[in-house]
Amino acid sequence: MIPSSLDEPLVIALDAMGGDHAPHAVLAGADLIRKRYSNISFLLYGNQSVINPVLEQFLQLKAICELIHTENTILAEDKPSVALRQGKDSSMRLAIDAVKNGKAVAMVSSGNTGALMTMGKIVLKTLEGIDRPAIVTTTPTIKGKMVMLDLGANIDCTADHLFQFALMGNAFAKVTQGLKSPTIGLLNVGSEDSKGNDRVKAAAAKLRETTLPLNFYGYVEGTDIAEGTVDVIVTDGFTGNVSLKTAEGTAKICHALVREAFMGSFAAKIGYFFAKASLKRAFSRLDGRNYNGAMLVGLNGIIVKSHGGSDAFAFSQAISVAIELATHKINEKIMQEVKLSQQTLPVPPTDDSIKIA
Amino acid sequence: MIPSSLDEPLVIALDAMGGDHAPHAVLAGADLIRKRYSNISFLLYGNQSVINPVLEQFLQLKAICELIHTENTILAEDKPSVALRQGKDSSMRLAIDAVKNGKAVAMVSSGNTGALMTMGKIVLKTLEGIDRPAIVTTTPTIKGKMVMLDLGANIDCTADHLFQFALMGNAFAKVTQGLKSPTIGLLNVGSEDSKGNDRVKAAAAKLRETTLPLNFYGYVEGTDIAEGTVDVIVTDGFTGNVSLKTAEGTAKICHALVREAFMGSFAAKIGYFFAKASLKRAFSRLDGRNYNGAMLVGLNGIIVKSHGGSDAFAFSQAISVAIELATHKINEKIMQEVKLSQQTLPVPPTDDSIKIA
Repeated sequence: MIPSSLDEPLVIALDAMGGDHAPHAVLAGADLIRKRYSNISFLLYGNQSVINPVLEQFLQLKAICELIHTENTILAEDKPSVALRQGKDSSMRLAIDAVKNGKAVAMVSSGNTGALMTMGKIVLKTLEGIDRPAIVTTTPTIKGKMVMLDLGANIDCTADHLFQFALMGNAFAKVTQGLKSPTIGLLNVGSEDSKGNDRVKAAAAKLRETTLPLNFYGYVEGTDIAEGTVDVIVTDGFTGNVSLKTAEGTAKICHALVREAFMGSFAAKIGYFFAKASLKRAFSRLDGRNYNGAMLVGLNGIIVKSHGGSDAFAFSQAISVAIELATHKINEKIMQEVKLSQQTLPVPPTDDSIKIA
Repeated sequence: MIPSSLDEPLVIALDAMGGDHAPHAVLAGADLIRKRYSNISFLLYGNQSVINPVLEQFLQLKAICELIHTENTILAEDKPSVALRQGKDSSMRLAIDAVKNGKAVAMVSSGNTGALMTMGKIVLKTLEGIDRPAIVTTTPTIKGKMVMLDLGANIDCTADHLFQFALMGNAFAKVTQGLKSPTIGLLNVGSEDSKGNDRVKAAAAKLRETTLPLNFYGYVEGTDIAEGTVDVIVTDGFTGNVSLKTAEGTAKICHALVREAFMGSFAAKIGYFFAKASLKRAFSRLDGRNYNGAMLVGLNGIIVKSHGGSDAFAFSQAISVAIELATHKINEKIMQEVKLSQQTLPVPPTDDSIKIA
């Protein structure tokens, strides 16, 4: 749950150059956060000749920012390997370094996801007991919100990876949704035991057999994402990425169809006049900006990825996620889950070299 | 394109016992088709003590039906292997046999998909040059309609399978959408060349390098499903199944949210009164019933799978798909594509044993 106030001062590192609308969206987003919390401050990484003129528009924000100049920026089209080699003094990398060195409790960037993941892994390293970091976010459902991972960090996953994603998703849902025992579903092509590929079946077996206090629901299907059947959906990065983008795309065309419908006739236009406010509220529940901020979970430090197209409001939501995760010490919670699993897990690692059926 | 009339008499085999609302939805659906075509007739497979009383309600339909009695029915929960062993005289199996024996040009069933696929493969065998049958359907987009496969027949696929799906999807889109050169997209986690797993990359290479007249667009993402970026989306059965169900689920909650919004205030209720007709039209574009009828493509005969929950209208749509595919001789078109690919394909089969990155 996002705290209403901060017990102690918090420093967040911001990649001021990342995203389509940088640096304005970054600074305007940070300014929205400044208005909410009295004891927050920011480390801004980026080109001072670009940032300073914008910062002059936000004088109260300027007072709580330290600007660290760099001329190097990771571009959206840079390959992760290139970013890693040539981006050592980039705004993104320096913001990650700030988390590594303890200068900031978290970093937020709207920049290149692949570069962020690769540099994050190299600089922060994975948490002990976690083989692969994953991308996790909350997403809207008819009932409220749900946590979903992996959204694209790991294109191919073993059953052990999926099991670790479940542990991390469990901790993430506890922290962000305030749930005591989140229900966890494994995304599959059907709910019956016989459905799915070998790695999904092996992961389900591990989740069923573990003596950990995990609330494993079983298999869920694509329809369960919007229905909010469970609190956490675990899947590989390929399926997670495609299905979340499918849901986003479908919500967008539904919205477009409804808008179009209201322009269809004179009667419909009158209808729109009366229903406008209610409809706005309904569609804001599906507005991706409200759910902006995905964590690269499984690293020794908090990295929050904001959507590349984020505006100020969306970016402020991503900073909120960083604050939420930092104040609730997400990584300590994940480490507790992992340690418990190492102590209690009687299930041997599965041999799930991926087979073609 | 669905023909407005039939040049020659057509016989369709119906599994009258399959689906949640059988036999009523099957017979009422067939009766809707009877009203559209003068020279169509049906072979009905199922239990006469259940079917006959319903058939009495549709006397004109009764006149163009031959009822073949059987007491054996495949249940929704039956495993495919059990269905295969014990279902030799089931309504589903006998309807497939009718296609095999040339008594019917196609069969339609709302029954158990796994059983239908397994029995279809054993009875009809795959088309020469096709290794794996796939499930293909049309689905709504903001622009109109799109063809997508595989939707769940093949949980793990190689690059060669994906390439064959592209050939079949191409033929299917030509027949059902009336397109001369459908654009074909490969579902992936990003549009850049570096994105995706080994099998997707190898399939893309094959599609790029082939000298066949295939209109390969490149990679598409989850958002492109609703946006209708391409005419055919090719993917493995796991991703296809999850993403199509995700889209269905999201469209459903959008509809529910809009309905809810109109109940939210008095003003909204007035708005609904005026906008009702336009909204109904908008959401009917996303109504799954309009797109009912998925083909088990790649078999030596036409099997159309109708949704298990189909009502009469939805079932009539599935019969329409069967008529469309039969009149346009879909399998001859697929065989032409395959033969052409065997003559011209200079690309050796890829060694794409799935690796974990």
